[in-house]
Amino acid sequence: MVTPIDPTSAAFLLAENRNMPMHVGGLQLFKKPEGAGRNYVREMFEEMRDVEEIAPLFLKHPHRSLGTAGQLVWQPDEQFDIEHHVRHSALPKPGRVRELLELCSRLHSTRLAWERPLWEAHIIEGLRDGRVAMYTKTHHALVDGVSAMRLLQSVLSTDPDQRNMPAPWGKRPSRSGSKAVEKAEKSLSDIPVQALRTALGITAEAAGMPGALVKTLSKGLRNETSALSLYAPRTIFNQSITGSRRFAAQDWPVERLRAIGKATGTTLNDVVLAMCAGAMRTYLIELDALPEAPLVAMVPVGLNAKQSQLASADGGNAVGSVMVQLATDLHDPADRLARIHKSMQDGKEGLSSMTPVQILAMSALGQAPAILTPILRMQGIVRPPYNLIISNVPGPKTTHYWNGAQLLGTYPLSIPINGMALNITCTSYDGHMAFGLTGCRRTVPHLQRLLTFLDDEVGALEKAAGV
Amino acid sequence: MVTPIDPTSAAFLLAENRNMPMHVGGLQLFKKPEGAGRNYVREMFEEMRDVEEIAPLFLKHPHRSLGTAGQLVWQPDEQFDIEHHVRHSALPKPGRVRELLELCSRLHSTRLAWERPLWEAHIIEGLRDGRVAMYTKTHHALVDGVSAMRLLQSVLSTDPDQRNMPAPWGKRPSRSGSKAVEKAEKSLSDIPVQALRTALGITAEAAGMPGALVKTLSKGLRNETSALSLYAPRTIFNQSITGSRRFAAQDWPVERLRAIGKATGTTLNDVVLAMCAGAMRTYLIELDALPEAPLVAMVPVGLNAKQSQLASADGGNAVGSVMVQLATDLHDPADRLARIHKSMQDGKEGLSSMTPVQILAMSALGQAPAILTPILRMQGIVRPPYNLIISNVPGPKTTHYWNGAQLLGTYPLSIPINGMALNITCTSYDGHMAFGLTGCRRTVPHLQRLLTFLDDEVGALEKAAGV
Repeated sequence: MVTPIDPTSAAFLLAENRNMPMHVGGLQLFKKPEGAGRNYVREMFEEMRDVEEIAPLFLKHPHRSLGTAGQLVWQPDEQFDIEHHVRHSALPKPGRVRELLELCSRLHSTRLAWERPLWEAHIIEGLRDGRVAMYTKTHHALVDGVSAMRLLQSVLSTDPDQRNMPAPWGKRPSRSGSKAVEKAEKSLSDIPVQALRTALGITAEAAGMPGALVKTLSKGLRNETSALSLYAPRTIFNQSITGSRRFAAQDWPVERLRAIGKATGTTLNDVVLAMCAGAMRTYLIELDALPEAPLVAMVPVGLNAKQSQLASADGGNAVGSVMVQLATDLHDPADRLARIHKSMQDGKEGLSSMTPVQILAMSALGQAPAILTPILRMQGIVRPPYNLIISNVPGPKTTHYWNGAQLLGTYPLSIPINGMALNITCTSYDGHMAFGLTGCRRTVPHLQRLLTFLDDEVGALEKAAGV
Repeated sequence: MVTPIDPTSAAFLLAENRNMPMHVGGLQLFKKPEGAGRNYVREMFEEMRDVEEIAPLFLKHPHRSLGTAGQLVWQPDEQFDIEHHVRHSALPKPGRVRELLELCSRLHSTRLAWERPLWEAHIIEGLRDGRVAMYTKTHHALVDGVSAMRLLQSVLSTDPDQRNMPAPWGKRPSRSGSKAVEKAEKSLSDIPVQALRTALGITAEAAGMPGALVKTLSKGLRNETSALSLYAPRTIFNQSITGSRRFAAQDWPVERLRAIGKATGTTLNDVVLAMCAGAMRTYLIELDALPEAPLVAMVPVGLNAKQSQLASADGGNAVGSVMVQLATDLHDPADRLARIHKSMQDGKEGLSSMTPVQILAMSALGQAPAILTPILRMQGIVRPPYNLIISNVPGPKTTHYWNGAQLLGTYPLSIPINGMALNITCTSYDGHMAFGLTGCRRTVPHLQRLLTFLDDEVGALEKAAGV
């Protein structure tokens, strides 16, 4: 059955090019269960591959032809081949995390071909410490990054003894914990008039450039509303990008970060931002490329139902954005953290005082910067509205398992775009805060050094906070 | 610099779709040199990747836009990224040949994206016997299968002590053994009026359906010339195909096959065909799908300069085709070999009595069955003109090395097309005859069984021949 593609998904498909693939990724690390045989990874791969029925979301691909009057539609893949989508891979020796990140970088660089359903999953063996990795890749036209991660998590269980658990792409009866699939499905095209759809509708309108909305946006970006009143300097991150990707990831105990927040009267999110700020300062100084003015990050924040004026059903999904000054001009870690805390507070206040349509417009910005960037450029806004996006998406707090394999960590891979060559997405899981850094390899050299600098910054903040 | 794409290459690009990728592949197995360290494969990969300058053939990609008036042109890749093209991969455990063939099947199934130069090379570690594998993939619009293999071989040396040898895609000064690159380059568009180009021109004309040539072709295929006067029954191989590929490969000592030929008064090529015939008979019987009438193979044969009426420069490249009856209706291996020998002789005689244009038309057929198939269908030829293509391409007779690594074997991966779901390409190297079987996984189930049957057939032929 051919179904229409909603305008936002279509925009993600059409905005895509070789330099700007529009898929989100996830890297998950598992510990083999007790008593796993030496063919464990192959068995895990086979379980993932041999699903009885695939969920419709994973069976359709975009199609455009004379028969559809040139319109993009979703079409079921009549020759769906699970072997193309679920793959068993291995790391070259010595099988360190470095080799894993190299493989993920490579896999994340390649576009998904429209002629097949827009997803891939790689079950990866060969880590010398015996862990098993899974890299997944899903087009943004199907799900956003948060939904993709929730989808992956939706099949996990807190029970280490549970077995016969489905693969994330398997079709499940709607009662048995398949909310994420349902939600992802719903967010596409099936819902009539609903909360999320309204927000998405605005992005679509923006892509079509209706005068009033663009005016609202550009007004905001011209410092005329408080939530957007920051000046972002030009940096190496704000250039055109190529199609080469580098991915780096690491996690730190939430306890350590929370202790810093407690001692300084700041939030966990403030500490995450301060880590990024300090790491980026060191990184840019080393490249002799630190601008005088402090960097500005766009930080998506959750909106409550009142703020977003959304119907209750999907209200929790609404996201607004705050512009946060990263204080990269300050030498002292404690000063940086304090300024970030203040900037975040100001931004949130500004956000609450915004009109609903402004909030939704910001929400659209957060979801579709690639679509809006050309519009902004047409409006004569030549300096970057912000330097990078830093997202922090809370995940499950307890240990989860897939058929007895313990999920040790989960790391998001996001979408760099022209003018925004680095993306930092954090997610917490089971007491750890995971950082996923995705960048254009040519524009952001030696991306992996940022991991060292992030680690240094945790130490510096602890010292400054006296914990 | 934008350069035009010659009509044949354009036809290969345009004929391509998800079910019919138009790239040829090669699998090469190497033995590590004495004293290789444990990072040997990584070092080999790095040597392959870090070439100083890439040959132009490997830098261009097809492009079509308003600026080119909708015409396909070659365009240099301004953002060429060697990391996208040369990759370091590893096999899952237990690292048998089976895992290697699975990986090659998977890599061979995916289309090359037009937005980048149309090639990939994978340096593969993880074979448990310590061998190193290299899988390469090149679009048929750049080179045909034979040229691709020669290109790979052109960088090898017979001297195990030679070092500092280039990668196949590195730019080399034209004197130092880069004839294959040159030839591949030349065969594209740069040569004015020349032998090969004439042959290619005919295919192009055929794609444009000039009356006279199509008449020649269809006349031939309607049993009106001796070289084409065979009836090919319908088989499972002659169906529409999907985009899933299976690749199987193995080699046998040329000595064994030659001994059979000697004892029976047949050629090495006859024995190769008899092996295929016997294996296919067993395979089809097992599937209860053996047709009563014997299968017919199209076998490309080299043409001498007189036959092909080509100028001396590139004359050696010309290829004609013989239709060979595979005698799959006969139970006895010796009878099959004898009938194949006779059929091959008849075909070659028919070929020498063909007019030059007929020979060139057959040559075109051999090079571009995908292009001609729709034409044949339009001409009302509904039964398959032949059941499969079996090529036998002679390779180097002596041991070759790449920077001290001994080439142990080299196996071709070819292009199944609609109506021709299985392709068998053989190549000899260093005393071994290698068989590469490429098929559509759905249309040709359990392809790898053919290897066992091929091996059985060698034994049966030896017994029949009394060697």
